[in-house]
Amino acid sequence: MKKITILGSTGSIGTNALKVIEANPGEYKAVALGAGNNIDLLLEQIRRFQPVAAAVSRKDLANTLKDRLKGHSKTEILFGVKGFSELAALDESDTVISAMSGASGLVPTYEAIKAGKGIALANKEAMVMAGPIIMGLAKKMNISILPIDSEHSAIFQSLQGHRREDLKRVILTASGGPFRNLSLEEMKGVTPALALKHPNWNMGKKISIDSATLMNKGLEAIEAKWLFDLAMDQIDILVHPESIIHSMIEYMDGSVIAQLGVPDMITPISYALSYHRHRKTGLPSLRLEEIKRLTFDKPDKERFRCLTLALKAIEAGGSMPVVLNGANEIAVESFLNGRIGFLQMPTLIERTMDAHDPFQLDGIEAIIEADAWARRTAERESMRLGS
Amino acid sequence: MKKITILGSTGSIGTNALKVIEANPGEYKAVALGAGNNIDLLLEQIRRFQPVAAAVSRKDLANTLKDRLKGHSKTEILFGVKGFSELAALDESDTVISAMSGASGLVPTYEAIKAGKGIALANKEAMVMAGPIIMGLAKKMNISILPIDSEHSAIFQSLQGHRREDLKRVILTASGGPFRNLSLEEMKGVTPALALKHPNWNMGKKISIDSATLMNKGLEAIEAKWLFDLAMDQIDILVHPESIIHSMIEYMDGSVIAQLGVPDMITPISYALSYHRHRKTGLPSLRLEEIKRLTFDKPDKERFRCLTLALKAIEAGGSMPVVLNGANEIAVESFLNGRIGFLQMPTLIERTMDAHDPFQLDGIEAIIEADAWARRTAERESMRLGS
Repeated sequence: MKKITILGSTGSIGTNALKVIEANPGEYKAVALGAGNNIDLLLEQIRRFQPVAAAVSRKDLANTLKDRLKGHSKTEILFGVKGFSELAALDESDTVISAMSGASGLVPTYEAIKAGKGIALANKEAMVMAGPIIMGLAKKMNISILPIDSEHSAIFQSLQGHRREDLKRVILTASGGPFRNLSLEEMKGVTPALALKHPNWNMGKKISIDSATLMNKGLEAIEAKWLFDLAMDQIDILVHPESIIHSMIEYMDGSVIAQLGVPDMITPISYALSYHRHRKTGLPSLRLEEIKRLTFDKPDKERFRCLTLALKAIEAGGSMPVVLNGANEIAVESFLNGRIGFLQMPTLIERTMDAHDPFQLDGIEAIIEADAWARRTAERESMRLGS
Repeated sequence: MKKITILGSTGSIGTNALKVIEANPGEYKAVALGAGNNIDLLLEQIRRFQPVAAAVSRKDLANTLKDRLKGHSKTEILFGVKGFSELAALDESDTVISAMSGASGLVPTYEAIKAGKGIALANKEAMVMAGPIIMGLAKKMNISILPIDSEHSAIFQSLQGHRREDLKRVILTASGGPFRNLSLEEMKGVTPALALKHPNWNMGKKISIDSATLMNKGLEAIEAKWLFDLAMDQIDILVHPESIIHSMIEYMDGSVIAQLGVPDMITPISYALSYHRHRKTGLPSLRLEEIKRLTFDKPDKERFRCLTLALKAIEAGGSMPVVLNGANEIAVESFLNGRIGFLQMPTLIERTMDAHDPFQLDGIEAIIEADAWARRTAERESMRLGS
């Protein structure tokens, strides 16, 4: 029986993870749930799964939650970074699904590893910001970090049973987002509502915008680098609008191993939890004879500058990916609240990166500092751009 | 150092295998070569690789070969079924590449297994005729049979590192052959010259015709059944004209693992010889961004009756697949020498199968008998159809 803490239980990964847990009552148990602000859904989840503990982002939300649960549940209610970190290190759990959105997932994920929990990772920002530190700690603690992102799960699955030394390159597929075929002029006019409609995946707001700018693919490339110990020139990005091939690995003999499937997060979540089994999920079979065709193209790095910026950030190294990520979170926020336009997101990120002198990261504190600096700087740039 | 006997050294698999051997002199050595009638090429191969022994199909060819080699080589020259069988069991070799065309590969392959050699198998007819016997003997002798056919290599590679119990189905891809889009009326007029031009693979005559009729896919499905211990309803056939995805496996959680590559036999040959390494081959990388699209369709079992017949034969069981295979070899021969038309091939095979009362196969002798019966009967039908 795997005893699972879900950080981000009300998000798209979290709700799907709970479906997997519920469908396998003899195998999995949800022992702790962490959510951001969606206390209505969290309340429902607590009633259903009766976890040992739950956490929300703020004290006032925690109090509301406690009031509404009075008499109905013994679940301990925590809040804030400290609450999430306690949840992550909870004695009652052995596995933590790290599925909070953005940089907020970093500290709880780090704490979970420190506490020796197995990690099922969906929070790519944690790896972008702290890849070497997280992987180093995981190695020291002798715990495994299994990917939940569909692309990284595909890479991970395609590595099974093949020699790591024989790997030539990873081919990371990208849907190309909803604006793949727009001209730069047309992209200027993209609204948040349009950008939130992803063609293949049903996801949260932050990742939907990142998919539309291809920043998501840049972050994924960085995540893949750390997760699978790759050089950046071993990672190729391939646009594949149908999102059926989730990623591939080319080996030295020309053989390419790929993982495919209908676009549904249930599969990678289930694989990460049941590794190395492929436990029944009840998903429909992939029917390529009905899909008829899969298409491929190079990514256009001119129109999708966010991708280029991500690759530049990892090349610069040190604190630069932290700054990229922090600036991107501010850019997405500023775009979603209407302050800046779609094409101003890369501009904001680039200006923040240009203003940054990268330094070596010697620990989580240095990362938090670089992140804070990036957010302050990006906020200022956002004001300037939005005025 | 792997010491290799190649049965079928002058064919398409054999010549590619010799390229792989030559490119890895520290890893592989060709110690014996068996060919059919192409003594010019065999002579060249003997001069180059100086094998311990070589064999050809007939005594007169063996004598010619001996004359032409006099003073140049110590290679022992053998001939006929007995010669091939001696070659297959040669003390000096540890691995046999079984790549003779058609039923003639059966006995030497069987002898190689009996002698405890590791098998790299390209001769699918041996498995179609004697699957359970061959697999049973291989198990008893504790030797492995590694597939060289690109589809079976893809299945084999997609099984690595994943639990066999979690397999849901195998998706065997088929190019659909050169006549995929012809009407029945148009197929009537297909000539041998047209049928020998395979769109993606450069292959021998027998397998090119089998690809054009889709009999090849039927034989491969039967081979896959025995090689991977599958029920026939676990094998789906998917038309994929570009031949880039060589086959796939769907697992219980909806995850599909596939093996892809440029259509070149070097990769599966190299994988079978270096298993489980992916040793460098110098092949160009697969560039899906240049190929642009992959397409898929259901096979049309109405127009391609040979496929239907193959599936019927394995359902009938016992000696029926032997009869299917024997009748098909006569049908291909009769088509190639102009006696019968393209659409008469399935008619000839069906009539032969209809005339056969299947019996249980208790050994190689029973198989040889059923094969001889099928050939006699099919020859008679061929005369009748051709007159």
